[in-house]
Amino acid sequence: MATTRSSRPTVYDVADRAGVSIATVSRVLRRPETVSPGATRRVLDAVRDLGYVPSGSARGLAARRSGAIGVAFPAFDDVAEIDPVPLSDVPATMRLDPAEAAEPVTNLYMGEVTRGVELEAWRHGLFATVAVARGERRDAALEDLAGRVDGLVVLAGTTPPEVLVRVARSTPVVVVASPRGEDPLDHVRTANGPGMRALVEHLLDHHGLRDVAFVGGVADVPDDLERFAGFGEALASRGLPVPAAPLLRGDFTEERGRALARGLVDAGRVPEALVCSNDQTALGVVDVLQRAGVRVPGDVVVTGFDGIDAAGRSRPRLTTVHQPMAELGRVAVDVLLRRLADPAAPLEDRVLPVQVLLRESCGCLRA
Amino acid sequence: MATTRSSRPTVYDVADRAGVSIATVSRVLRRPETVSPGATRRVLDAVRDLGYVPSGSARGLAARRSGAIGVAFPAFDDVAEIDPVPLSDVPATMRLDPAEAAEPVTNLYMGEVTRGVELEAWRHGLFATVAVARGERRDAALEDLAGRVDGLVVLAGTTPPEVLVRVARSTPVVVVASPRGEDPLDHVRTANGPGMRALVEHLLDHHGLRDVAFVGGVADVPDDLERFAGFGEALASRGLPVPAAPLLRGDFTEERGRALARGLVDAGRVPEALVCSNDQTALGVVDVLQRAGVRVPGDVVVTGFDGIDAAGRSRPRLTTVHQPMAELGRVAVDVLLRRLADPAAPLEDRVLPVQVLLRESCGCLRA
Repeated sequence: MATTRSSRPTVYDVADRAGVSIATVSRVLRRPETVSPGATRRVLDAVRDLGYVPSGSARGLAARRSGAIGVAFPAFDDVAEIDPVPLSDVPATMRLDPAEAAEPVTNLYMGEVTRGVELEAWRHGLFATVAVARGERRDAALEDLAGRVDGLVVLAGTTPPEVLVRVARSTPVVVVASPRGEDPLDHVRTANGPGMRALVEHLLDHHGLRDVAFVGGVADVPDDLERFAGFGEALASRGLPVPAAPLLRGDFTEERGRALARGLVDAGRVPEALVCSNDQTALGVVDVLQRAGVRVPGDVVVTGFDGIDAAGRSRPRLTTVHQPMAELGRVAVDVLLRRLADPAAPLEDRVLPVQVLLRESCGCLRA
Repeated sequence: MATTRSSRPTVYDVADRAGVSIATVSRVLRRPETVSPGATRRVLDAVRDLGYVPSGSARGLAARRSGAIGVAFPAFDDVAEIDPVPLSDVPATMRLDPAEAAEPVTNLYMGEVTRGVELEAWRHGLFATVAVARGERRDAALEDLAGRVDGLVVLAGTTPPEVLVRVARSTPVVVVASPRGEDPLDHVRTANGPGMRALVEHLLDHHGLRDVAFVGGVADVPDDLERFAGFGEALASRGLPVPAAPLLRGDFTEERGRALARGLVDAGRVPEALVCSNDQTALGVVDVLQRAGVRVPGDVVVTGFDGIDAAGRSRPRLTTVHQPMAELGRVAVDVLLRRLADPAAPLEDRVLPVQVLLRESCGCLRA
């Protein structure tokens, strides 16, 4: 049975006071014409006397369920305000589209996690309601969403932790990401550290590499910290020196990966292997190295992390660590439903397994 | 102001009968402790007497808005039932991942349209609630979703037209696709025909090709029919014979594109150009032709349609027609809000422009 951790009056309190079943309370609010005038009056009196606030759809009242799971993301699209789609009278235009500066669809992660939330919600007869924390009202919008759903799956970085903790007082929240320190929330995440460690041990053991450098993403992001830690553990386990910081630091975009690679080429000093914190950075690095005549993997091995579609399309295809994105969404919903069923259960911190995919960019397969 | 086409009693009727403002009705249902006992009683009486059925969240009552736009898709994922995500104790596994049989993430279209719906909904302070028409309860689930949202964006093929027409009696529906014959619904679609015609005229005029064959997708799908019609118009406009049917017919998947290309190679008869009805088919075709030693575009030109990310990653990159997927979602929401504002307005059939992207696979750019 769904319950929340708030002390607001519930449909049970209303039924109790009115001396009717919760089904009758529900019918009074949904189809009052099917209930006797006496019972209707007693229910409406109880609603008023208790200050009962129906939340979510009328249909959800009896079970205290809105029928939806919320899923909230940071504004990956970097949109703060946007104009309407312009009208156009020309049905088809044409242009040359040179190979420069392809950037993968940035919402792939969001799309896959949403697909997982939707799929697991569907298994339980629920819908998925999506919100992106965008613009000035983003924290207020998240609280508004929380009032409309049974529980929230929130991606790391969507909203400040204090907002999440406040929201979680009335609506269960599962955070998709590693906890930053202690918080009173359930978490679902992937095995970033073990995945990176397995990949780097492979480079050291199988390919005999020693001059292996880490190309980081955005600093202080848990994903990046854990991947760099896994990188260090691999080096330490083979008796190699462990750097205190990544050799280079990008921002998870292909464009920034390109800029970092240009810097290496200009300096005339490229390590034996560039272990990148995500696929997009690695794709940018490979592109610039190849244009500069540096062979991948002949002259330098380059690896990624995430397992996005583009990493399996590039030449060479990227050796990478595949994150189960849709499964993150599915397991987050599972954790949420367990929390709804048992608000007092111990906090969960689920870590989903990853898979190292060995392809051409480390030299395991030939193009 | 939002209105619906149903004749159910509205919040205005309740306010009217109770002799209070709609804000007061809303407050009675949301925060009854802030309203005088007399006004509360009159509102609750009016609710009962009129058989007023609150739909959507309590917050939405005053404006008759649930705060969400629904978006419903066919089950691209082909899932009818699914097990829970299995637990695993191994955080990282590793495997060789050969290049065979890569298939793009199938929900890219769904992800992009959803992103567009979410973005435009956000502009208007609304959320997006997603449902996939999957399994035996799919039509019932769509009707359930309709009862929880202000309006529905429905992709073609999600549900039988008669279900949509029934749903549209109480909740506005915008169909993302071309109408199949006449229906009493608003439509948003892309310029499939003009896009394909512009692409094929380019092959005829700029590259001087004459032996140009069409590789279709699923038969009788409006997208495919319109693209094939555009192909025929291009040939006719240049005085060339127009085939009655595509040379080959796939099913929009890369795998089927591979099988079709194997057939051509085995038969030893490959046309000058293979104009494919979508990118995934074209990617499969190119892959098999290249493995068989047929050069693209040297021996045969291959083109796609859709503009998915993978088409800009392949070697050669595909010349294709880019569909504005996120804009489809955005414009669908715009049409929905216009319909809510004016239920009696004439039906809309918005056609969004496409863009032909000239790349390496037609020979316009060199690898």
